[in-house]
Amino acid sequence: MMTTIASPEQLRRLIRAKSFANPTTGQAGGYLQGNLAILPKAYADDFLGFCVNNPKPCPLLGVSRPGERGIAALGEDLDIATDVPFYRVFAGGSQRNRIEDLSADWRDDLVSFVIGCSFSFEESLQRARIPVRHIEAGRNVPMYVTNIETRPSGPFHGPLVVSMRAFSPADAIRAIVLSDRQPLAHGAPVHIGDPAQIGIKDFDNPEFGDPPVVAPGDIPVFWACGVTPQMAIRNAGPDIAITHEPGYMLVTDVPAEGASIGLNAAH
Amino acid sequence: MMTTIASPEQLRRLIRAKSFANPTTGQAGGYLQGNLAILPKAYADDFLGFCVNNPKPCPLLGVSRPGERGIAALGEDLDIATDVPFYRVFAGGSQRNRIEDLSADWRDDLVSFVIGCSFSFEESLQRARIPVRHIEAGRNVPMYVTNIETRPSGPFHGPLVVSMRAFSPADAIRAIVLSDRQPLAHGAPVHIGDPAQIGIKDFDNPEFGDPPVVAPGDIPVFWACGVTPQMAIRNAGPDIAITHEPGYMLVTDVPAEGASIGLNAAH
Repeated sequence: MMTTIASPEQLRRLIRAKSFANPTTGQAGGYLQGNLAILPKAYADDFLGFCVNNPKPCPLLGVSRPGERGIAALGEDLDIATDVPFYRVFAGGSQRNRIEDLSADWRDDLVSFVIGCSFSFEESLQRARIPVRHIEAGRNVPMYVTNIETRPSGPFHGPLVVSMRAFSPADAIRAIVLSDRQPLAHGAPVHIGDPAQIGIKDFDNPEFGDPPVVAPGDIPVFWACGVTPQMAIRNAGPDIAITHEPGYMLVTDVPAEGASIGLNAAH
Repeated sequence: MMTTIASPEQLRRLIRAKSFANPTTGQAGGYLQGNLAILPKAYADDFLGFCVNNPKPCPLLGVSRPGERGIAALGEDLDIATDVPFYRVFAGGSQRNRIEDLSADWRDDLVSFVIGCSFSFEESLQRARIPVRHIEAGRNVPMYVTNIETRPSGPFHGPLVVSMRAFSPADAIRAIVLSDRQPLAHGAPVHIGDPAQIGIKDFDNPEFGDPPVVAPGDIPVFWACGVTPQMAIRNAGPDIAITHEPGYMLVTDVPAEGASIGLNAAH
């Protein structure tokens, strides 16, 4: 049976002490969790530009100063290098997974970007008694590469990736309204209805995640997804890039509702 | 060329002086306009209950005291019996249209209900550069009788009537978010997508208004409509009922955005 930790600070402390090694979904309810992207300073300005150009897939929760492991606006005590259960380190052409601590990999030129994710808005849907079908089915959300291009910045470019959740039409309307209130968790959807209109050719076989769960009469709803910046980073090809292990997010002290873009960056 | 009057008070004064006899759409921008329903006191409590039971089709802007022609919360100077360009009077089994002044028909037991309409939210869509296709085509909005029953109150009952506007999927998402901010103008839609799911059998031939205007790739979006209470009144069959002539609304001093249900009733 999984423990639920209510306080983001307490959860980060447990993760730091290696006493919590589960996915962070459902933990520290009501607070924003973030995708982590760590890049060398030489790439930081262009990546910051990419996030600013594409706020729906890349809502910026915070940016560190070069070499610094803290972002005070996201949590007084927060330590980027220890407060995520598992990291992925891409360096020198190889990839190391499920790294528990970044201290050995840390460099003075690393800049950390924290980008909002959809966990907190899925929590709002569930609180509003709107069924989130992939969660009920115990699956990962399906994610698709679209034919919509992001606005590039320097070497960062690539397609918009979307996640899909299907609802009855009445619930889809409520999900649109509720998600719009969380611009830092990707905000309102980018598309509803026919997948082919955004270049999705094989709806049943998403590029990432699990196959979709759709009930009769459902309408598919598509949100911008945090995989978008990961694809852009791969396209830019920096000598080092560090991300979180999917599902193991950075938990922040920023309330999910009422926060807005631009208030939390400490760069 | 049509004059545009910015102030609701000035517009009401012109209407009262019989110097303005046009539809009120596009006038007094940013202020709520209302459907008018005037009923004898014997029916008023049940109709009030009908509106409370069905806030999406019947968002109450204001209710008068019996016999009184003013509703101060909607406008200090407002006179229900003179401030609408044209009225319809249903009495003794007959119907008189385009009545300019209700003074001769007024009774001490009449109660006036002012119910929000969609004009102010269509104005928001246009300000947001979202094409409203029936307006661009110079048509009336299409309206459909659905298979969704309203929650009855005394003799007032009947189906939910909806209006339809079609948009590109991206604009539909924005229209949903924008209309949700105006609960007194019918709020967020009640349905999107397949018309058959809410019992609409002949999409091209709406029960009221003009045939739909739909562009390739559009998704239809359905809002609760002010024709709903009119059908419920017909079903209740009071000895007298007075409404506005369609398109000629009561213009109020209530700002369209930021107002919410329950703040403006003076009953």
